[in-house]
This record gives sequence, C-alpha cells and structure tokens, in this order.
Amino acid sequence: MVGRAFVDHYYHLFDNERASLPSLYQPTSMLTFEGQKIVGVDDISSKLNQLSFDQCRHVVSTIDSQPSAFTGGVVVFVSGSLQLPGEEHHLRFSQMFHLIPTPQGNFFVQNDIFRLNYG
Amino acid sequence: MVGRAFVDHYYHLFDNERASLPSLYQPTSMLTFEGQKIVGVDDISSKLNQLSFDQCRHVVSTIDSQPSAFTGGVVVFVSGSLQLPGEEHHLRFSQMFHLIPTPQGNFFVQNDIFRLNYG
Repeated sequence: MVGRAFVDHYYHLFDNERASLPSLYQPTSMLTFEGQKIVGVDDISSKLNQLSFDQCRHVVSTIDSQPSAFTGGVVVFVSGSLQLPGEEHHLRFSQMFHLIPTPQGNFFVQNDIFRLNYG
Repeated sequence: MVGRAFVDHYYHLFDNERASLPSLYQPTSMLTFEGQKIVGVDDISSKLNQLSFDQCRHVVSTIDSQPSAFTGGVVVFVSGSLQLPGEEHHLRFSQMFHLIPTPQGNFFVQNDIFRLNYG
C-alpha cells in the first residue's frame, strides 16, 4: 500500500509539478540517475529540474515493495515507460526507492536509482 | 565496490552453483520474483532451485549502488540480460538487492526484487 501510494504521488508530481518533487527528498538523500550520482536535496532538485525534457508522462507497469531492514522503511521497485512529447517510442525504465518514515508520518526518499532499459 | 563484488559473486553462483545461492540469504530475507513474494531462506531456496530453467547465464549491463539508511547496508540495482540455452533472444532483466552486513564481515541479502523487462 505504501509503495503504490508513494509511486502514484511521486510520478504525479514529476509529471505535473516537478518543482515540488524535492519535497520528497532530504539532505541525506541519494539519487543515481543513469549512472550519475547526486547527493542531497539541493543537488537532486537541480538535477530533476534541469533534465533535457520539460514535459513527460510516466506510465507505471509494475510496483513491487517490501519492508526494509530500517525500522518502518520500505523498498519499492517500479517498472514502466516514460513518454516524451513528439516521441513516437516510449522509453522503458526501472527505478528503485528506499523510503524512510518521517516523524510526521510521511516518507522521504533516502535512496533513488533510475535507469532506462535499453532493448 | 561492495555492489560489484556482490553482483559478480551472486550471478556466478546463480549460473554455476545455484544450489549454493541460499547461503546469501537469511531467515528474514525477502524475495519478490516477477511479482511473487517469498520470505525466508528455505522458501527462497526452493523457488530459486525450482525455476523453469536449469541452465542460464546472466550478463550484467549496469550496476548502481548506494549506502542505505541501515548502518553498513548497501542498495544495489542491476540491469542485464538472461541467456537461456536454445533461446535466440535474451531476456532483459532488472534486479535490486538490499545488502546487510553480517558479524563475519560479509553481506546477506535482506531484500531482493527481480523483474524481467518486457519491451
């Protein structure tokens, strides 16, 4: 449940309100985007808001989640496709998140690894 | 470093000595294999040793790893292809592991999520 709710929220923000996406990260967060390692909410924010595409749509195919070894944490694994305007072919991607609970009862993204799947 | 060494060891065992693969799991370990959730080293062992193929070869394309929120833990994300005998086309896959250190200085797999990537 946590996994699906988070994933829906994450890609909704990504596709519609990308400037708000950094609210899901914290100073300790790590993102590896197509092999590029980025640490901390500020640099992650810069990266996500400076991607080569302004508009996109994520379509999720599968969501798998498990409780992690960190108390209350959840690992989430997503596969799906990324649709860019004017591109005929969708880009398949896989992404994993390690979510950590906040004192406020939400989750933040501690680990985020994104890869496009090349056929 | 941990990520690559583990991944090399894991797929070497998987492809050459699959009966030894359960040594990398513990009673708390979780595997989600193509959406099927399996908990504990015994059931994971049964699953991995009863897959529909006896022989296979994993070819790794990318390995991304990050320290996790659990002290000494590492999250590892792998993409690659799975080659089965007599199959002309390789199967693309993505897999994530959450590795937890053991008192002996090794790692065990706490979380394992495997998905084939369908184009």
